[in-house]
Amino acid sequence: MVRGEINNGFLHEDRLFSPLPIEREIARELYKSVKDAPIVSPHGHTDAKWFAQNNNFENATELLLVPDHYVYRMLYSQGIELTELGVTPRAGRKDFDPRKAWQIFATNFHLLRGTASHVWLNQVFGEVFGFENQLSPKNADFYYDTINDKLKSDDFKPRNLFDKFKIEVLATTESPLDELKYHKQIVDSDWNGRVISAYRPDNVVDPEFETFAYDLNAFGEIAGENIDTFAGYLKAHRNRREFFKSMGVTSTDHGHKTSRTEDFSTADCEALYQKIISGKFSKIDAENFRAQMLTEFAKMSIDDGLVMQIHAGAYRNHNLKIFEEFGRDKGGDVPSQTNYTDDLKPLLDKYGNEKSLSIILFTLDETTYSRELAPLAGHYPCLNIGPAWWFNDCPEGMLRFRELITPVAGFYNTIGFNDDTRAFLSIPARHDMARRIDARFLASLVASHRLSIEEASDLIIDLTSAIPKKAYKL
Amino acid sequence: MVRGEINNGFLHEDRLFSPLPIEREIARELYKSVKDAPIVSPHGHTDAKWFAQNNNFENATELLLVPDHYVYRMLYSQGIELTELGVTPRAGRKDFDPRKAWQIFATNFHLLRGTASHVWLNQVFGEVFGFENQLSPKNADFYYDTINDKLKSDDFKPRNLFDKFKIEVLATTESPLDELKYHKQIVDSDWNGRVISAYRPDNVVDPEFETFAYDLNAFGEIAGENIDTFAGYLKAHRNRREFFKSMGVTSTDHGHKTSRTEDFSTADCEALYQKIISGKFSKIDAENFRAQMLTEFAKMSIDDGLVMQIHAGAYRNHNLKIFEEFGRDKGGDVPSQTNYTDDLKPLLDKYGNEKSLSIILFTLDETTYSRELAPLAGHYPCLNIGPAWWFNDCPEGMLRFRELITPVAGFYNTIGFNDDTRAFLSIPARHDMARRIDARFLASLVASHRLSIEEASDLIIDLTSAIPKKAYKL
Amino acid sequence: MVRGEINNGFLHEDRLFSPLPIEREIARELYKSVKDAPIVSPHGHTDAKWFAQNNNFENATELLLVPDHYVYRMLYSQGIELTELGVTPRAGRKDFDPRKAWQIFATNFHLLRGTASHVWLNQVFGEVFGFENQLSPKNADFYYDTINDKLKSDDFKPRNLFDKFKIEVLATTESPLDELKYHKQIVDSDWNGRVISAYRPDNVVDPEFETFAYDLNAFGEIAGENIDTFAGYLKAHRNRREFFKSMGVTSTDHGHKTSRTEDFSTADCEALYQKIISGKFSKIDAENFRAQMLTEFAKMSIDDGLVMQIHAGAYRNHNLKIFEEFGRDKGGDVPSQTNYTDDLKPLLDKYGNEKSLSIILFTLDETTYSRELAPLAGHYPCLNIGPAWWFNDCPEGMLRFRELITPVAGFYNTIGFNDDTRAFLSIPARHDMARRIDARFLASLVASHRLSIEEASDLIIDLTSAIPKKAYKL
Repeated sequence: MVRGEINNGFLHEDRLFSPLPIEREIARELYKSVKDAPIVSPHGHTDAKWFAQNNNFENATELLLVPDHYVYRMLYSQGIELTELGVTPRAGRKDFDPRKAWQIFATNFHLLRGTASHVWLNQVFGEVFGFENQLSPKNADFYYDTINDKLKSDDFKPRNLFDKFKIEVLATTESPLDELKYHKQIVDSDWNGRVISAYRPDNVVDPEFETFAYDLNAFGEIAGENIDTFAGYLKAHRNRREFFKSMGVTSTDHGHKTSRTEDFSTADCEALYQKIISGKFSKIDAENFRAQMLTEFAKMSIDDGLVMQIHAGAYRNHNLKIFEEFGRDKGGDVPSQTNYTDDLKPLLDKYGNEKSLSIILFTLDETTYSRELAPLAGHYPCLNIGPAWWFNDCPEGMLRFRELITPVAGFYNTIGFNDDTRAFLSIPARHDMARRIDARFLASLVASHRLSIEEASDLIIDLTSAIPKKAYKL
Repeated sequence: MVRGEINNGFLHEDRLFSPLPIEREIARELYKSVKDAPIVSPHGHTDAKWFAQNNNFENATELLLVPDHYVYRMLYSQGIELTELGVTPRAGRKDFDPRKAWQIFATNFHLLRGTASHVWLNQVFGEVFGFENQLSPKNADFYYDTINDKLKSDDFKPRNLFDKFKIEVLATTESPLDELKYHKQIVDSDWNGRVISAYRPDNVVDPEFETFAYDLNAFGEIAGENIDTFAGYLKAHRNRREFFKSMGVTSTDHGHKTSRTEDFSTADCEALYQKIISGKFSKIDAENFRAQMLTEFAKMSIDDGLVMQIHAGAYRNHNLKIFEEFGRDKGGDVPSQTNYTDDLKPLLDKYGNEKSLSIILFTLDETTYSRELAPLAGHYPCLNIGPAWWFNDCPEGMLRFRELITPVAGFYNTIGFNDDTRAFLSIPARHDMARRIDARFLASLVASHRLSIEEASDLIIDLTSAIPKKAYKL
Repeated sequence: MVRGEINNGFLHEDRLFSPLPIEREIARELYKSVKDAPIVSPHGHTDAKWFAQNNNFENATELLLVPDHYVYRMLYSQGIELTELGVTPRAGRKDFDPRKAWQIFATNFHLLRGTASHVWLNQVFGEVFGFENQLSPKNADFYYDTINDKLKSDDFKPRNLFDKFKIEVLATTESPLDELKYHKQIVDSDWNGRVISAYRPDNVVDPEFETFAYDLNAFGEIAGENIDTFAGYLKAHRNRREFFKSMGVTSTDHGHKTSRTEDFSTADCEALYQKIISGKFSKIDAENFRAQMLTEFAKMSIDDGLVMQIHAGAYRNHNLKIFEEFGRDKGGDVPSQTNYTDDLKPLLDKYGNEKSLSIILFTLDETTYSRELAPLAGHYPCLNIGPAWWFNDCPEGMLRFRELITPVAGFYNTIGFNDDTRAFLSIPARHDMARRIDARFLASLVASHRLSIEEASDLIIDLTSAIPKKAYKL
């Protein structure tokens, strides 16, 4: 009986809902109203080139495994070498066999049980590629060949997938050095898909970024500004932001190790900047510079209206060896504690009550949800809370997000879902998970008589559509 | 069917219980036994003047919106000006229209969905004023007029409400400078309501309190002590505590930014005190002084038997602009991290094993529940844990409190519920929420066969009545 | 009806399962497959002497109350003196009446409601001793006499209990100064029980350990090494580890106040060591030495294959008075915040990618589960996460462990259950609780269609047996 009722767990229509009948029934009803709603993806890391050139994707391994650090970090933790999985070393690949990598992936798919990737991948396999059984060592080759065949078809060209996924708008993330030529190509094409960028200046803001000195030089050139002074440097940002804005961009993004902000005097800023560009700066100088720049970017946002995203708290490249051999973003990042209450004070003292400013805060430290982020965003007009991010972007993490934030900040100081992904094919699965968990959370409030079904129905639609569009000015 | 079963969420009799039938049924049974129990309110911020003078309340806006920073901080976070809501600037009100404020409140009531205030306000509206539908833009004027009419009646005079609410004892909170004249007036009246105070000396203990220097002067005078020395200053506290105690007071309250305690030598204390009263002290001196005073107050409590409450971890007046324009307690406070394990060590080294000492610890940092507070209170005889406080005083927060604390500290190192409110009319709703959530938590233990129904029945009664009375020596 | 269904909570067959019927049914099925599986106990604090000498235990109080600091800390927190409960002061016992202690325990048994000890003790009383009603003041003497009678029988000799409990392997914990003579006696006996030790060198690693100087001296002697230099000191560890390994030991254990690691130069290590052995070291020196030693032990583990356990974050002997009067491990320890992300970096920079290294991390700070431990262990090949430890070893804590860790680190970077106990008779109850909670968690994933019942069935068996044996190389 149990087995009969619950089936095999592969893409059940009630997946992720509460198994309590009354909650499940309400969740189904709420979910139904947003299941097929267009996807608003205001923050992510897909490649605009895909949609500009519209070439077919290469093969299953290159598309689904090689770029997915959520997956290969788990395999690496159990002793599998990254090179076996196709992750490219700085020194270049040697003898890589994508089919063999896929087989290793299939053989170790059980390692992902209980993770968010397990949910996303099952949905990609089932809904995008039509598989009826979960990936396993036995069907690894069948999966590999079937996926590769489909990827060669017109239906699986990037633009057709984009349209099939009903993506209303998709934001990528680029550095100020980017000319946004692929975005321009898309605009100039006869395709109607809306792909915009976001202004992410970390490589010219973080003095500890490995290419900082080189990139800073290029930054002055591309902005057409003399950046020998702090004023010139700020002007260069304003120029590039203006250019990004002219290309439809509505937001900036700041990936800082901490959430610290500062409000130094003009003279101190100049002195700090001179130290930074001299290359002779301490760790504290670098932190101070990043902190001051958050406050500067807040000012720019007040002026040009770009929404400001702060993704704080990742200890990037924590695994030194992986960074040295493979580079950035290879699964070797680890969260650390974050202190928004103290860190944001200088910025908030200066601009916290500006209604024209909109800052979206993201955290990897869930302890800050109820202790700091909800109280801050439930008071300051400029602050909103981004969705459960990265390691917390999983069913349990999304539920904790709502449970910890809603009692103090409600729903309207949150900003809907971000998929924040490089894994293009998983975008519908990720938004689907968010919609299911929102339906589940709202159903629990209805079932305990905290909300009427009408209130919950309004909310699920707002959370899926109206709230993210308003938050990102889309 | 779903809609039929769950109704509209406005004051359902099973609200806040688990929707799982077996748990709901047990919760109903447990709740029933305490639903109508008298209210013990040992800590809060109502105004003794109301009960002393027994005048009718002014109008809906002044009673329910203007004093409720839980509500107006949320509205402020969404761009509504505090002055529109009747919050009075230091410079005084201009052109305030209470009906218009009420309409703004009604129009934005949906912002509170999912919050604790949503639950409390619905209960106040439904049970105290008899409304049958939730507040909305459409019924804003009907609500406003109906409430105002009732407020004019005898039934809604403060003493009659107090009696109707079945309040057995209500504690307010006063500074050592207070003569407790309203409390005296109540005692001297023919009314039997028990309204006592609590000794809250922050304004003469925290050197960074904005009126500290002025208040300190008044403190020496009212206590009739020469407070030029630390010994004299301590004596002044002992005098005022004695006076408070003579007025029926059983507790003190200490709202410190951190939970730090110190145990300096007599000479160091004197030197520190001289710095403090000279006005030439550093932030560290101020923190050290507050820390030392917690230890001093513990000693006084051993001597005079007053129960000591420590409310630590609020970064008061975080929003500088709001503080400057409107003053304290206007929704601009934010929690910060707290470290009880290290902070309390000096005090505990000195007095931690004193059975005659009773300290109730409150936290805004939920991470300390299982990591610090439960292990500390589950061992030290003098320590007890206060209920989920302020931002955590919500259904989810109360459940987390029990789930995180009970496995290590049990029920008998907690002290029952505090409403801790300025919102007099919400007191029954707040205690009702606590009783419902305790019933829900106990029902979950019974349903998973951790407790018998008899054990749970004992516990709900103890938690509602015996435990708070014992903890506060009432 | 409610009462009928749920009975009295004393040893119900569905205890600790979710009361939701579909989840309960799945949990039952999963639990059934591991209910009677042999117990693998790779980390604990039982006394090898019991199994070497196989003498009958003394009486109920000495066996069940006196050694259980989980229980007597709770009674102490409510004003009962430790001496009344048989906890032996350094100065020796006076007039101790074990029956009276048992009566006090029975009278205060309600203080444990909702705690893990309540569950364990009920199971010990019901399943090991056959009682049919919960301990209470009324049946205190009946309990006491019945237990004492049974303890005198052959069936209740340590080895017979060990066999009856189906313990496959039991690890104790000894200092490098231990000759493991009881372990040798067991090996040499005709009994087949497998009792091994673990290498726990804190007393010769932590300069602040109260017997450090004395023990260090003995350490050089027993290791047969000149430990005047750091190299000699390290060699002594290698010798003793080799001896432990020859006695079947597969793991080491390190109980440090923090998780800090360091990687100092050879010269700095030598200088630090000289300071340490001179006795003239600061708190920072002591912390640095412990930190460096974790990195040294990682190197030794790479060489000799011993699995390395790090139990970090306990503030030992927090209650100074209890420590002074009664000594270590008397319930006066309190957790504190831990920072694995920064603390482990030096060790991980050096050895983090070594596949032959296995480090099991334990925490008392649950905030690190999702923020640090899951991301770290879900990436670094050498890291695994130990089960919910000490204060967190309770049904709620175990569920939080799985909910917070699984989405990022999955199941295969965890290592199964540790009972970690001195309370021998509670070992089956503790493992039973772990199995029930794993069944409950897996059932919740199946019921929300995240896993198939077949996947969950594999996992519960792996978690109970294959995973701990592999993790501890048993």
